[in-house]
Amino acid sequence: MSLIVHKYGGTSVGTIERIEAVADRVSAAQRAGNDIVVVVSAMSGETNRLLGLASELSERPSSREMDVLLSTGEQVTIALLSMALHKRGIPAVSMTGSQVKIETDSAFSKARIERIDADNIRSELAQGRVVVVAGFQGVDPKGNITTLGRGGSDTTAVALAAALSADECQIYTDVDGVYTTDPRVCEGARRLDKITFEEMLELASQGSKVLQIRSVEFAGKYNVPLRVLSSFKDGPGTLITLDQEEDMEKPIVSGIAFTRDEAKLVVRGVPDQPGVAANVLVPISEANIEVDVIVQNQGINNTTDFSFTVARRDMEAAIDVLNGVVERLGAAGVESDDRIAKVSIVGVGMRSHAGVAAKMFSALAADNINIQLITTSEIKTCVVIDERYMELAVRALHSAFELSGSKHSV
Amino acid sequence: MSLIVHKYGGTSVGTIERIEAVADRVSAAQRAGNDIVVVVSAMSGETNRLLGLASELSERPSSREMDVLLSTGEQVTIALLSMALHKRGIPAVSMTGSQVKIETDSAFSKARIERIDADNIRSELAQGRVVVVAGFQGVDPKGNITTLGRGGSDTTAVALAAALSADECQIYTDVDGVYTTDPRVCEGARRLDKITFEEMLELASQGSKVLQIRSVEFAGKYNVPLRVLSSFKDGPGTLITLDQEEDMEKPIVSGIAFTRDEAKLVVRGVPDQPGVAANVLVPISEANIEVDVIVQNQGINNTTDFSFTVARRDMEAAIDVLNGVVERLGAAGVESDDRIAKVSIVGVGMRSHAGVAAKMFSALAADNINIQLITTSEIKTCVVIDERYMELAVRALHSAFELSGSKHSV
Repeated sequence: MSLIVHKYGGTSVGTIERIEAVADRVSAAQRAGNDIVVVVSAMSGETNRLLGLASELSERPSSREMDVLLSTGEQVTIALLSMALHKRGIPAVSMTGSQVKIETDSAFSKARIERIDADNIRSELAQGRVVVVAGFQGVDPKGNITTLGRGGSDTTAVALAAALSADECQIYTDVDGVYTTDPRVCEGARRLDKITFEEMLELASQGSKVLQIRSVEFAGKYNVPLRVLSSFKDGPGTLITLDQEEDMEKPIVSGIAFTRDEAKLVVRGVPDQPGVAANVLVPISEANIEVDVIVQNQGINNTTDFSFTVARRDMEAAIDVLNGVVERLGAAGVESDDRIAKVSIVGVGMRSHAGVAAKMFSALAADNINIQLITTSEIKTCVVIDERYMELAVRALHSAFELSGSKHSV
Repeated sequence: MSLIVHKYGGTSVGTIERIEAVADRVSAAQRAGNDIVVVVSAMSGETNRLLGLASELSERPSSREMDVLLSTGEQVTIALLSMALHKRGIPAVSMTGSQVKIETDSAFSKARIERIDADNIRSELAQGRVVVVAGFQGVDPKGNITTLGRGGSDTTAVALAAALSADECQIYTDVDGVYTTDPRVCEGARRLDKITFEEMLELASQGSKVLQIRSVEFAGKYNVPLRVLSSFKDGPGTLITLDQEEDMEKPIVSGIAFTRDEAKLVVRGVPDQPGVAANVLVPISEANIEVDVIVQNQGINNTTDFSFTVARRDMEAAIDVLNGVVERLGAAGVESDDRIAKVSIVGVGMRSHAGVAAKMFSALAADNINIQLITTSEIKTCVVIDERYMELAVRALHSAFELSGSKHSV
């Protein structure tokens, strides 16, 4: 007998009909002899309805009261799903975050889980019940209702799986797994049977949106096997796991991520001396602008060029800050470009394979795609290019690394 | 400084606009120097929306899960009202039944309050906050969410007022007080400034629907001064209190209640011997039929007629039971009539005034209204008549006891 945590998002429980379908899936899993804990989100549309009520009342509603308000969304779903399970003859009991109890800090609307007391759940499971838990919510040490912020239901599911030492945490979504890249951009995109936490983190942070980063970090930290599956069709999905030893034939590259949400800034002719990076980035950080890619080249003639990317919406603010920096440092000037895209290849196999980056650059060169910036990490190589070539680059790389094949590329 | 509990029902918080109006009223009361606790219901329509979702899923949903579902209605309102108070610069904090905490038994959907720990509320009041409490809900000893059943928010308000030793519990409704009778039936109906708990109980149980009986019983038991007021217009409302000594000139009759929800049953020619009432009523009670008025006349020729009333919907079932009874007892037969009305005059002044019943019967006789049954209690006289004459009877009695006058009748 396995203990499995299921998680269904708002779209998967968006109507009574879909809640019935979820109940079918949960019933089958329980009848197959498993202990099941189900984590659910609010029915799609419900959170927006509640936000609408609040915004009619107040432009800046108290975040404590927003959490009281929004947490009702999941509470409705747990009650309805429990009823649907009862109708199928499955003993089931609902629990709010407070009933479980999922203890968080008091950072309303973006609380972090501090501790889960899983005894209540264990006792219900021991009595043969499916436990249906409200995602996205917890309770602080004073008994206030908190919410975990966007995507928080994934985190609830993973945290519960960790606390219960579950055999698997299954995240049911509207896609049937993690793909080598976005199928809308590259026809040959292929579902991965398996991927490591590290790869998933790089894919997620590089613009792939299947899972919330926080939940993947959490799963990795507590070694909770995580599986992404479709709520709407059967299939094995993608297993995300620490364990990469089983497959002798590891892929060099597992997937390709991309985003055009960023803008590039270049500070030209900065005096090349210790502290240059700090001189440029501290004022940026003080302006609450987050920086992603950072590149500093070897200087020439005692000056260097310093480049980085920020979210597109922050570009103008960053330029303002940098104009001050240029004056103070006696640099040559600032250039900016918001027509860029970032494309990354990700794979644990890169660690031990030389020539991966070279293969990437050759593939882009073959399509005449100019590379503006390059950064690398142990399991990722990332380039910044003109955004017009983003789709072309993704397809070229997908093909170069033979990701469309029925098995791994070599 | 007074401590006042306000209670607003679903209609009073049915839209954002109305929640704003409630916030205005609460702000004014707090700025006048009072400590305020506000109990609210779900926005009107919300409970039905939630019931609709449940009924799509299941014909007989689990009552535990219904309570989890329905309790979200009040939770939405407490968050929204707190936000509206913040907007007015009033410090406010919301609390669910579980957060207060309002401990109940585990009779889901019709739980009874067993204990209120008011420390959390007291501590918030001490910090100058308005406390906004979800009505209609509590928590059982195991931490399950419970609801108190219909009209439960009134009970929450009165129970909190008792636990906090509040100076007054103000129930805001869509009427501006308790009337001598229903103004839709009798134009001259007049708002009462004051009424006793006993009178209110008799009026409520006799068909006047301003307040839930349970909340009035509760208020009487713990001597919580209760005031019924309008959410929509200003005015003193009606104060319901133990204290009847202040007014030297007491009214004989405070109000007139009526209902046509009942049916009459008469068992003819029952052998007149000890145990006859039990012989008739025990089988009725065993069939889960509730009996209201019971009348047994002095027998003639060793037999008697035994009459009583039941809810109209139970009449057919009662006839079935009585046919068996007639056979067993050798009685003459059963008669039934569902075209009846019950009209009652209520007033604590009756205790010390003779001739009140006589005046009632004369007034009815003057309009040729035949009386079928009569029962009396210390502060009530009740008649059963043909339902066609109900409105006529109410107006005749209202006039006979001079209830339209600007002051009390004598």
